[in-house]
This record gives sequence, structure tokens and C-alpha cells, in this order.
Amino acid sequence: MELGLVGLGRMGGNMRERIRRAGHTVVGYAPDTESADVGSLREMVDALAAPRVVWLMVPAGEATQSVVDELAGLLSPGDVVVDGGNSRWTDDARHAAELSTRGIGFVDCGVSGGVWGLENGYALMYGGEQEHVERVRPIFDALKPPGESGAVHAGSVGAGHFAKMVHNGIEYAMMQAFAEGWELLEAAKEVTDVREVFRSWQEGTVIRSWLLDLAVRALDDDEHLERLRGYAADSGEGRWTVEAAVDHAVPLPTITASLFARFSSRQEDSPQMKMVAALRNQFGGHAVRSSS
Amino acid sequence: MELGLVGLGRMGGNMRERIRRAGHTVVGYAPDTESADVGSLREMVDALAAPRVVWLMVPAGEATQSVVDELAGLLSPGDVVVDGGNSRWTDDARHAAELSTRGIGFVDCGVSGGVWGLENGYALMYGGEQEHVERVRPIFDALKPPGESGAVHAGSVGAGHFAKMVHNGIEYAMMQAFAEGWELLEAAKEVTDVREVFRSWQEGTVIRSWLLDLAVRALDDDEHLERLRGYAADSGEGRWTVEAAVDHAVPLPTITASLFARFSSRQEDSPQMKMVAALRNQFGGHAVRSSS
Amino acid sequence: MELGLVGLGRMGGNMRERIRRAGHTVVGYAPDTESADVGSLREMVDALAAPRVVWLMVPAGEATQSVVDELAGLLSPGDVVVDGGNSRWTDDARHAAELSTRGIGFVDCGVSGGVWGLENGYALMYGGEQEHVERVRPIFDALKPPGESGAVHAGSVGAGHFAKMVHNGIEYAMMQAFAEGWELLEAAKEVTDVREVFRSWQEGTVIRSWLLDLAVRALDDDEHLERLRGYAADSGEGRWTVEAAVDHAVPLPTITASLFARFSSRQEDSPQMKMVAALRNQFGGHAVRSSS
Amino acid sequence: MELGLVGLGRMGGNMRERIRRAGHTVVGYAPDTESADVGSLREMVDALAAPRVVWLMVPAGEATQSVVDELAGLLSPGDVVVDGGNSRWTDDARHAAELSTRGIGFVDCGVSGGVWGLENGYALMYGGEQEHVERVRPIFDALKPPGESGAVHAGSVGAGHFAKMVHNGIEYAMMQAFAEGWELLEAAKEVTDVREVFRSWQEGTVIRSWLLDLAVRALDDDEHLERLRGYAADSGEGRWTVEAAVDHAVPLPTITASLFARFSSRQEDSPQMKMVAALRNQFGGHAVRSSS
Repeated sequence: MELGLVGLGRMGGNMRERIRRAGHTVVGYAPDTESADVGSLREMVDALAAPRVVWLMVPAGEATQSVVDELAGLLSPGDVVVDGGNSRWTDDARHAAELSTRGIGFVDCGVSGGVWGLENGYALMYGGEQEHVERVRPIFDALKPPGESGAVHAGSVGAGHFAKMVHNGIEYAMMQAFAEGWELLEAAKEVTDVREVFRSWQEGTVIRSWLLDLAVRALDDDEHLERLRGYAADSGEGRWTVEAAVDHAVPLPTITASLFARFSSRQEDSPQMKMVAALRNQFGGHAVRSSS
Repeated sequence: MELGLVGLGRMGGNMRERIRRAGHTVVGYAPDTESADVGSLREMVDALAAPRVVWLMVPAGEATQSVVDELAGLLSPGDVVVDGGNSRWTDDARHAAELSTRGIGFVDCGVSGGVWGLENGYALMYGGEQEHVERVRPIFDALKPPGESGAVHAGSVGAGHFAKMVHNGIEYAMMQAFAEGWELLEAAKEVTDVREVFRSWQEGTVIRSWLLDLAVRALDDDEHLERLRGYAADSGEGRWTVEAAVDHAVPLPTITASLFARFSSRQEDSPQMKMVAALRNQFGGHAVRSSS
Repeated sequence: MELGLVGLGRMGGNMRERIRRAGHTVVGYAPDTESADVGSLREMVDALAAPRVVWLMVPAGEATQSVVDELAGLLSPGDVVVDGGNSRWTDDARHAAELSTRGIGFVDCGVSGGVWGLENGYALMYGGEQEHVERVRPIFDALKPPGESGAVHAGSVGAGHFAKMVHNGIEYAMMQAFAEGWELLEAAKEVTDVREVFRSWQEGTVIRSWLLDLAVRALDDDEHLERLRGYAADSGEGRWTVEAAVDHAVPLPTITASLFARFSSRQEDSPQMKMVAALRNQFGGHAVRSSS
Repeated sequence: MELGLVGLGRMGGNMRERIRRAGHTVVGYAPDTESADVGSLREMVDALAAPRVVWLMVPAGEATQSVVDELAGLLSPGDVVVDGGNSRWTDDARHAAELSTRGIGFVDCGVSGGVWGLENGYALMYGGEQEHVERVRPIFDALKPPGESGAVHAGSVGAGHFAKMVHNGIEYAMMQAFAEGWELLEAAKEVTDVREVFRSWQEGTVIRSWLLDLAVRALDDDEHLERLRGYAADSGEGRWTVEAAVDHAVPLPTITASLFARFSSRQEDSPQMKMVAALRNQFGGHAVRSSS
């Protein structure tokens, strides 16, 4: 089938390649991008026969909103838009409603797989009406991993991004778990070869996992991670997971701790620990370290 | 080779079977156990040709100490004792010293794999002198999973149990991470089929792992886990991980939160939340729930 | 001066009394309330000479919104509305804008003090334009505690409720801190008289505080808090504090842990701990507790 | 009465002064200290009439142990030693037993009050036999704050330091609570004058406390704490509190989070966040910050 693909970054570019390998036609567009197949959204739409499917891999928020707005004016009734980006699930209903007034369908799709997806396939969690989902099915089949699992129709519009958001929340806590264990092993000096211990865990243990495999790859490349700084960004899903939990009164201690650890990692100095230092100084005359 | 095996419970019994399948001779002993091959530790020792290897799969603490004490009197110089139980790593140096005065070697070995180890192999993390480890090598080879990894000589005496302890700390936090994500999906009702979302994550995602596979098995058996109570014991390693972290000034927010969640799960009512309720009542006249 | 007061519950009723004791005239209204001075908002407005000040002590959310809407139609240019309830600070700008189109001023005011405020005074944190704040000044002076502090003009509209929200976040964590310490003392049996230890802390210690005084009162009333259940509601501010922190990438480990402890306290059984139990059962054949 | 006082540092020196103001005779000793009244422990003992009371204000651990050992050889049956330092409560039973073999009594005493104790009095939590406690009573009366509370006989030997340890755990979490709230106010910019909001909280609020008073003092001195680094040491009690909680299966989320925040504050770079960065890089090709 034919697919319009908006966004050709690290994720979008590889996805275009994987879909093409499956025999589909992809018309890719991204502004000011040499590898784009067309020069504008309008050209992309014109290059596709109706009814069209257009897949967005665009940064969440304003960028996605602006493409949805423009596509609402360019597409025809019966077309379907898939938002495969990292949009907040609460945006999906709004986008679906906006497109629906023009008779255009909407599917939200959380995509996992990173730079490995091109070869291994992308895990897909999508939400929307059955009719719209079926229109996109051949593309889902091209993108997903080869096995039985790896893709799910999670529910109505928004459910795909919601499921992906929770996936990422779990991912945060799993990464933090391995990171804490690694730091303790490195600190304690009881274990003489931390990297080999991590490697041994890849088979037979309760914690064997893809993230563990990646940790071993990272340690093979830089045994004590000396070339990295302890700095981690967050891309939104962790925050939204915590907010969803607060809304539903669900305690999320490990996921939240993982998010806060990232926040702290990005501070040059910690304001709250300045206050702790100030209080210790006030009552105990404890030595403090002055900045300078 | 020949092996003496003390302890024939869920773990020990399966390990005997796996070692025998590899062609070795196992003389298994456990008190008051029908499946025991001999009737006492002395009979077990007498049935083995020197130099002997004796492997313990006995509850940590007093039970292990008492077997070590008795073996110290029964074994001969050149024999080796392996502690494969869940002993605290700080016990290992004491056991090694006690046996060393008699010329008996000591290896500590953390074993992971649970009820799946019989078929899949057991992950092994061991510590001790190279000479003693080599004596046990054929047994390690019989127990470990078939691949390249799955076993590691982690360092000197104590390093095996230390590595296993940290493994379990990570395991706690990974389990908690999946558990938090599952509760949020169940609570939020955005996703209509939580079990199918979990199933979809088994391929292509960042969080694919053996624990996720087990979660799907559990949900296939009892989709909303209605037959279980939210009650989780802890077997010591989680506590020791936290204590080791405190000793080394390493922050472990997710592992500690996971341990505390287990503590809370075992309380009929929470004393600390009684105090929170009491304080709210004192300052605000907030409604409280009385016990009755 | 004259004040219209909407809401005569636990807080509003006592505030009317304190304001009257200071010599002001209060026309209090609450629907279906015997102690109301008038039978409707309209009657209340009619009973006050312009320019009027009307103070709301109404539940946050829909109830407050509906009173603001109705007052927008009843009041006159130059009047001022004060929202003294527990509104989310993000509601304040909307209320201010709505009233501003009619020439009506708006001040948001966080109020702390609980049932003790009648005698001790209420701490006040208010936000809004200087001109509107000055109109309310005599009422602020009547309500506030007698000392130098106890009231602050925190900033523009919304700043009052924001400051109160953070106050409550801190309050959550302080309550949790005392609660944790109390539970540990009760559990450890090293200290033979936990209540007397708490009492001793009221003077000379670093942790002396009003909350500690209240804890001692509570223990004097029920030494082991046997008459209470470990159940604590939350009134919104804790959640909003966490959400504000997530928005600003500020780590709040203790405040968030305190909120989550309240969430957990309200669950009959913990779904997430069911999943932990299920996973332990899957890999280890660990005993689980079945619900029944 | 007469008192021997070993240790004349920040705490010990002020305590000598307060005890003297109450009319008692203090013979103070500290090695290589100009303000010492005698030149050795032996001289101190010789200067006191039996039965003697000797109070230690010496760093916990080896320093305290060595003074106890030496006093065991110098003192006479019927004398009493008070350990007023920050010893771990588990050391107390050992010290008591060691002295008891010579007929010397032992009392452990947690002391709170910091540099303010000289004027305000010191809060005292002591453990030991009634007979020994009574011998020290005049000194307790001299040191304690003037009010009804401020001192407690918490139980048998060890109970004093245990109570003080829990006090300090609570103190950690309270300090962290104020610190988190302060950072959020500073970050959010909704409140234009954070210091004045803190000041306003000193009266009428739920969170009024001595620590809040100290926070205001600190902000008066350095409004945005620009002269401090966010670095906080810990003196042992926080760690012991967490370990005691782990031993008794008591969840301590806020106290532990406060301890971990201090650990993190002392790391130049976070090893665990290096691992998180490494993992993100492995699966997503996310930008990382290299150390350099």
C-alpha cells in the first residue's frame, strides 16, 4: 500500500526503510530535509491516491499540532492520520475530534524500539476505531517484530499513547534499578569484575532482559563509563506517567524516584541541598561548603 | 565427579536432578527427608572419596552455620565446601576461616533460577580462591545455562553472595516497576485490555525481559490477579542490599522503595498512617476512620 | 468594615466569629444552613454597601466556580472577591479574568490554622493586585495571628494559593516524618515509653514544632492510637504540589513519598503487590496468600 | 556536685559552661586542648571525689571506645560513666557490660540542641538503670531546657541513643521537607518573595517549627543561599535509623529519601546516572554528555 510519512528523523527515517523493505510505497516528507521524497505536505498528499494513510513521526506538542492542523485542510474524507510520535495521550482526543469534523480518521500509536527497530521491528501500541486501525494494518504488520506479540490494539483513541507512556514509566524504573545495582557493585569493591558479573546475569537469572544486554554492551565499550557524564534527559512520558498516577491515586514509588533522579542529574548544584546545608549550619554550626 | 549435596528442598532437589543428568554422582542428604540418599552428614561424607566437594543448599543463618560446624569436624584437609544458599555475604569470611583451620576450602555461590533452573540451568555467581573454584568447576558446568554467560567467578570469598544479593535488589525494583505499571493501567481504564498490552510488550520493546514473560503467564492464569492477596515476603537479600548501600553511601531509591512496599504489604494496618490520621484529626478535625 | 462570607463550614463558621470579635460586620451565607445570616447570595449582596468585599470559603472546583459565576452577575464594579478556599492555584487566573470583565477585583488567599484558628489566628497567604489586597486588609488583620508574621502578600493572582499548596506539601512530609519515627519506636521496643520520648522532644530539640505538640496531644488521648485506622485522605494540595514539581523538574522525594503513603493507606488490598506476589510465585514457587 | 567531662569541642565546651552556671563543679579534659582543666584522664579522675560521675562528649566509635577502656581502669566501683556523644545505640550494651565488670555504672544520653543549647538548654534522652540515672540527675537538670519537657528516661541502656537516633531521622526528613518546598517556590516563580512566604509561615500555620525559624534566619542572611553549596554530610544517626527500620521491617520512605539525598549531594558526578545515560544511548541513540 501507499503511506505518507511526515518526519524523517532518527525514528522516521528508519521506519520508512523498514516499511519499504516490506514492499510498500512510502512518500516521506520533512521540512528542509535532503532525504525527503517531496517538498511539502501538499505535494505528499497529492502524491497519494485516496483513501490515504498519513503517519506522523514529529515531536510532540506544537510541531504535531501544526501538522495535524495543516493535514486537516489537505486530506479528504475517508483518509486516516496516524500519530506515531511521543504525543501526550490527552492530545489524541483533541486531534481525533479536529480531524473527525472533516471525515478524517485518527489512530494514535506508541512506537518502541529505538535505533534497533529497523532490524528487529518496532513494538506498536495503537488506539482508535477498529475501522481506522484496519486501514493501517499492513503498515503495522511491516513495522512490528516478526513474532506473535509486539503489537496491540490497546483501546479507543488515546489508549495507544497511554500504553506507551506506561511502558516508558516502567522503562525508567528498570533502567534506574540496573543503574543502582551497578553503582553499588562499583562502590563496594567486593566484586572484582563488575562487568563480568553483569555479563553473567544475561542467562538463567530472574533479571535477564534486553536492558541488561544493553548494559553489557555499554560496559564492553567503556568499562567504568568514564567517558559519560551522569546526566539524563527525560522526554515527557515519565512525567505524564507520574501525573496520571497522581490523578488516579496510584502510588508509583519506583517510577517517580527514577524521574526525580533524572531531574537531579541535570542540576549543577542542588537548591534543596543548599537549604539542608543552611539548616545544619544554623543549628549545629556544621561545616558547610561555600560555592566559589 | 562425586558431589555431596546438603539440602533437598525446592532448589536442592532440582539441582541434584540436573547434576545427575550431566553424568555426575550426587549423594544427597537432608534431615527427615524421604528422598535423601543417606541418613546423616557422616554417612554422606563416608560415601564420598576424598578429596570431596560438598554443596550446601540450606536456609541462611543458623541452619547453614550448624552444617558448616558439623562438616568442619567430618571433612578432611583438601575437601571443599560450597555454600549455594542465600547466606549473607558477611557470613562467608567467617565460614571460610573456620574451615580453613582444618585445611578445608570454601566457595560461596549465589544461585538464581528458581523452579525453572532444572530445565534452563541456574545462573551462578561464585567467590573464592581459584584453586577451590576449579575443584567445583564440573558441577558449575552442569548447573549453569548452556550459553556463554550465566556463571561468573566474581572475586574472593563473599563476592558470589554479594553479587547475588545485588542481583536480587535489582530484581525487587524490576518487579515493583512492572507492578506499578500494571496497577496504573488497571486503574486508568484508558486501556481496555491490560493483559494484551503486557503481552504485546514481549517483543520489540525496551522493557522485554523474563519478568515480563512471567507477568504475562500470571495474567493468563488470573487476568486481574483476583485470586491473590497483595502480600509479599522478603528473603533477606533486599534488606542486605539496602544496608550495603547505606554503608557505602550509595543512594538506592528504587530498590529501597521496593523493599518498603513489601514491608507495607505485610501490615494489617499501618501504624505510621494511624499517626498521620491522628495529626490530621488534631489540627483539622478531619474525619478519621476508627478501628472496630 | 462589612464583609460578605460565603461558606459557613468548620473553617468559615469560625472565621466569621473571629472577624466579628475584631469588630467587623459579617453577613454570612451558606445554602440550607441554619446559622446563615441571609437566605441567598443575592440577599447577601443586597445587605452590603458598595464597594463590597465578599470572601468565599467553599469547596474547591465546581462549588467555587459556581459561586464565582453567580457573584459575577450580582456584584458591582469596584467590589472585590476573595477566594479563601483550597482552590488549585491554576483556577485563580480564570476566576480573576472572569470577574475583571465586570470590573470586579479578585484576591486568592490560602488559609492555614484548622480548628485552632479561631483562638490563635489564621495564617494567610494572598495573591492579587495591591489595590484589591488593600481593600481586604482589615479582614486580613482580624484573621491573622497577633505576631509579626502569619500573613504575606505572596505575589500576583494565584500566588496565595500556590504558597499555601507548597505549605501543605511540606506539611505532608513533616507529618509522615513524625509518623515514621513513631512507628519505628513502637516497633523496636528499645524505648519503653514512646509517648514520653515524644513529649520530651517538645523542648530543646531540633524537631520541636506544632505538629510534634499535636502528636503528643494525640498520644495523650490514645497512647498507641488503637482507636484509629491507618487511613488518610488527601485534599488536593499534595497532588498539585507534586504536579507543579514535575512541571518544573524539581525532585520532591519526601513530599511525593508522603502522598503515595496516603494513597496506599486507602487501598483495601494493593494491586501492585498482587503483581509482585504473582511474579514471585511464577519464578520461585514462593508461597502466596490467596484472597478469600 | 562534681562532674568529670571528657571532650571540650563545640558541644562539650558549651555544656561545661551551662553546668557551671548552675553551680556545679566541672573538671574538663580533652587532649591537647588549652581550655582543659587537667592534663590527662588520670588527673581528672584524681581531681574528683568518689563516687564520681564522668560524662563523655567524644566522637562515636573508636574515640569513645578508647576513653571507656581507659576509664574502666581508672574509675572505682560505684562511679558512673555517661556517654553523651553520638554513639550508635548498639555500642551502649557493650560499654555498659565492660564497665559493669568493675562495678562502674553506665548511662547513655542523646543530646540535642546544637550551638543554641548553651542559652536554651539541651534536650536529653537517657537510658540506663534508675540508680545510675539518679546519680546524674543534678547534671541533667542543669543541662535541660527550663520547661516541663526536654528530658526523658527512655528505657534501659541504649534507649537514650536509640531515641536520639530516631529524633535525628525525623530531623533529616523535616529538613528535606522544607528544602523541597523552598526549591519548588524558587523554581516556580509564582511567588515573588519566597523569603517572605517562609517568614509568614512562622505563625499560625501547621508547619511552624524551630527548623522553619532557622530557615528564615538563613534566608535573612543569604536570601537565595548563593553562598552555599548543595552539599550535606551525615553523622551516622540517619544511617542507623534506616538500618534499624530494615531490621524491624518498618517502611521509612521519607527518612530514607532524605538520607539518600545527602549521599547524592556529595557525589561530584553520579555513577548510577552514568549508567542511565549509557542505556539511553544504547537503545535510543539519545544524546549524552561526555565527561571532559
